[in-house]
Amino acid sequence: MRSRADAVPAFVWVPEVPSPDTALELDAPTLHHVRRVCRARPGDALALTDGRGVHATARLEADGRVHVIERRIEPPPAAATIACGVPDGERADWLVEKLAEFGIAVFQPIDTARARWRPERTRTDRWLRLARAALGQSRGAWQMEIRPPVGWDEFVASTPPGATGWFADPEGARARPIPDPEPRDWVGVVGPAAGFEPGEKEQLVGRGFRPIWLSQRRLRTETAALALAAVWATARPDPDSAGVSGPPS
Amino acid sequence: MRSRADAVPAFVWVPEVPSPDTALELDAPTLHHVRRVCRARPGDALALTDGRGVHATARLEADGRVHVIERRIEPPPAAATIACGVPDGERADWLVEKLAEFGIAVFQPIDTARARWRPERTRTDRWLRLARAALGQSRGAWQMEIRPPVGWDEFVASTPPGATGWFADPEGARARPIPDPEPRDWVGVVGPAAGFEPGEKEQLVGRGFRPIWLSQRRLRTETAALALAAVWATARPDPDSAGVSGPPS
Repeated sequence: MRSRADAVPAFVWVPEVPSPDTALELDAPTLHHVRRVCRARPGDALALTDGRGVHATARLEADGRVHVIERRIEPPPAAATIACGVPDGERADWLVEKLAEFGIAVFQPIDTARARWRPERTRTDRWLRLARAALGQSRGAWQMEIRPPVGWDEFVASTPPGATGWFADPEGARARPIPDPEPRDWVGVVGPAAGFEPGEKEQLVGRGFRPIWLSQRRLRTETAALALAAVWATARPDPDSAGVSGPPS
Repeated sequence: MRSRADAVPAFVWVPEVPSPDTALELDAPTLHHVRRVCRARPGDALALTDGRGVHATARLEADGRVHVIERRIEPPPAAATIACGVPDGERADWLVEKLAEFGIAVFQPIDTARARWRPERTRTDRWLRLARAALGQSRGAWQMEIRPPVGWDEFVASTPPGATGWFADPEGARARPIPDPEPRDWVGVVGPAAGFEPGEKEQLVGRGFRPIWLSQRRLRTETAALALAAVWATARPDPDSAGVSGPPS
């Protein structure tokens, strides 16, 4: 077992982070999480974020309030979007959680010729909660944005000019070499379980997207989306390299 | 909607694939899957595998039996192993499914100083079923092997000499450049939710494992395992390049 000395401080989302030297009341579920799940005791350090870039260190008080010690703004993440067709079953739930862990900025469900997001399977509120929980887990200060589904034509027309875009395609090229210097705007696109129509792929290529081969095996929609996110995440600059992209030492 | 003409044939696991021109009785759940889920009709093509390298094309008959047309052996996959500490909660289930989709050959649960696999959470039979289902999904002919948990020292001593090994480490180097030529034996190691002890990392380095940085965000155990598998999968040779590893065209 780890000793308490090397325990990582509890990291919690709060709606607003107050100024240093002020106290904050946690809501009951958050306080329960901090005390029971993270086993924080009075005097222990906590980390707080509002999911909009504010990151604070704080201390748990005996009365259950937290005292903010230091408050800073984290720079916004790279504008990485995963645009995703409909996966089978309930699989969007964990996809949202995993994308949020990797630090993807935007999750954009897309309707395509072969599958449309059904309202009862498009649980935006639940996904927001999952993205928020993943924020605490992954110690990020920017919460992943969950967009409502868009139609295919609207999505294609909205892809930003100059973005680097990839789409998962068994007939594509391998994901390496990763573009260097690392792009700020990146969009990864994955078709629904039934795949893209050929015409949809042509439209993506026409917008500058590259078809990317991800595996020798056929991947489910959510697995392909996760693989794109993982390859994107490993292509990000090292935390210490101040944005300079280069080979590892 | 797709027309039936471009539907992908149903791909099913069977215990034994008989010789061409013989008929095979499917068990009731498999027949249900083929008829109801895949909507195969008499005369439709099916793909069969035994998960031990045999891959066959077959035809569904009106009486529900399948007639084997052609039978071939797929070469065994690269010996890729994911050795994984204990994740939180029920998260091993989907990890097994995803690793099997990527074509990982062996899933090896490992006990470490900070966490041991509890028998009630080590559901080998369930994981075998999930790996088998993923085989059909991903159209592989080799089923992922599920090993029982091993103790740390036994695991370290068992790592094959000459293997390429990586372990997920926030202080490691980035996953690229991927070793080239692509190794046959590869082992990816991920610590439990509470992380590795420093001494465990030193032991891995002593055995030739490289610490690999996977994300700017802190990843859960199962997410790190999946990221390692995704990076490994994208580093595999293109299907058409006959084992020659090189940049995409």
